[in-house]
Amino acid sequence: MFLLTPVLVAVICILMVWIFKNADGGPQRRKREPRAEAPPPWVHEDLKDSTDVHQEEAEADEWQESEEEVEHIPFSHSRYPEKEMVKKSQEFYELLNKRRSVRFISNEQVPMEVIDNVIKAAGTAPSGAHTEPWTFVVVKDPDVKHKIREIIEEEEEINYLKRMGPRWVTDLKKFRTNWIKEYLDTAPVLILIFKQVHGFAPNGKKTIHYYNEISVSIACGILLAALQNAGLVTVTTTPLNCGPRLRVLLNRPTNEKLLMLLPVGYPSKDATVPNLARKTLDQIMVTV
Amino acid sequence: MFLLTPVLVAVICILMVWIFKNADGGPQRRKREPRAEAPPPWVHEDLKDSTDVHQEEAEADEWQESEEEVEHIPFSHSRYPEKEMVKKSQEFYELLNKRRSVRFISNEQVPMEVIDNVIKAAGTAPSGAHTEPWTFVVVKDPDVKHKIREIIEEEEEINYLKRMGPRWVTDLKKFRTNWIKEYLDTAPVLILIFKQVHGFAPNGKKTIHYYNEISVSIACGILLAALQNAGLVTVTTTPLNCGPRLRVLLNRPTNEKLLMLLPVGYPSKDATVPNLARKTLDQIMVTV
Repeated sequence: MFLLTPVLVAVICILMVWIFKNADGGPQRRKREPRAEAPPPWVHEDLKDSTDVHQEEAEADEWQESEEEVEHIPFSHSRYPEKEMVKKSQEFYELLNKRRSVRFISNEQVPMEVIDNVIKAAGTAPSGAHTEPWTFVVVKDPDVKHKIREIIEEEEEINYLKRMGPRWVTDLKKFRTNWIKEYLDTAPVLILIFKQVHGFAPNGKKTIHYYNEISVSIACGILLAALQNAGLVTVTTTPLNCGPRLRVLLNRPTNEKLLMLLPVGYPSKDATVPNLARKTLDQIMVTV
Repeated sequence: MFLLTPVLVAVICILMVWIFKNADGGPQRRKREPRAEAPPPWVHEDLKDSTDVHQEEAEADEWQESEEEVEHIPFSHSRYPEKEMVKKSQEFYELLNKRRSVRFISNEQVPMEVIDNVIKAAGTAPSGAHTEPWTFVVVKDPDVKHKIREIIEEEEEINYLKRMGPRWVTDLKKFRTNWIKEYLDTAPVLILIFKQVHGFAPNGKKTIHYYNEISVSIACGILLAALQNAGLVTVTTTPLNCGPRLRVLLNRPTNEKLLMLLPVGYPSKDATVPNLARKTLDQIMVTV
């Protein structure tokens, strides 16, 4: 120590502590990097909406029909006289206005050609970048239907009894349904609709499925209209917490997530529905 | 300097640098705190899906038609012979399969009774807890249409030129569209579809609109089918970043968020569409 001048000691100590503190601070800085992916703090919640740019969904504003430049062809159109347009639109509304969510479904078989046609109709829906990100799993096998029922009733019972807070349980007392879903056994067909949350390029890389949930929901809207048009009934269900188990049961890949389950058939003889009204046109439409 | 021993100098220097580096590191640690809001790391992405319990959406599994206990009434049903079901479902598919996203819309007026009817049809969609969380804003006024066009083209130009990274810009070169949206002026009607992300109880408190985006998207699917049935064309658009400005322009409340904008009319004489095919039934349907 007696060989070192005070100045040299000072310089060495400063260097040592500097290096030590930098080694300590390094991981902190590395850890901070992922924060760049968080939403910018200046986006006020009231100003956020589904048209904000999302990292995964931002590339499609008009729903481009393909990612390749494709040939354009003349559009051929069926135009009706005005009087017929009014009549057709009125009849379509009246047909759909008879649709109700029916929970009492007969075990009578339905023609499978009709099921094919309603799913083909659903498949005409537009989708972000023409990705057509939907898979319709049609379950007719009684054993598989029963397994689906077991999974849903098991999860639903836990939902009802454990996962819900006291407010939720109180709210649900008003409803007449519980976790017993008899229609999952009796309906001749269950249609499980999966959204493909991403796709795969030929090289195996993930491809983005823009607006996949909205696209598949639009397809479900067309499916509901097609079922009503064919004289079949269903009820729109979104089984809570059952998606992963049902996906595994049905051997669907991990990029597919359950969006909806529709039990499909004829109504049972004693089917009832809640006596409810729909909003009137002036409650849902504003003209500018 | 000669009064200080080398040891004392060493201690003072270590303390000074330690304090200096801590003062430097302090803000780093404070900045890191917001990371606690990130999703819990134990939720594996592959296990997440739309059937997971969401805080706001968890209370509706079957889409209950009301929050009040309501009287049940017998369900009346129109049943067709099997042959007719097959025929009807086939015709409905063929009608919808002719639908295309059309970006070239004539300025010819359309009968407003038809617009009323297609929106009434859309309003028959099911919704979580029968909340009917949709508002259809029908814009006919040329000045308002032009203001909408200005907002959308302004934001879209920024989207194209500034908000998109180089990959995005490259990707978009494949497409034939840009930020010029002539149809926003020429289409006789623009339908802007807003989702009500929550409602209001009589006491002014917020009420939950379960699955509002899925519900409104289903209604849009029915709307697209109704437009096609009436012989009108449209293109599904989701204008990026324009929601808040359009909401303010149209005087919609803050609980309403723009989901979609549909320009509606007849196709222009020279309308073209990309020459694209849809997936076949066996590419979208799996039978079990």
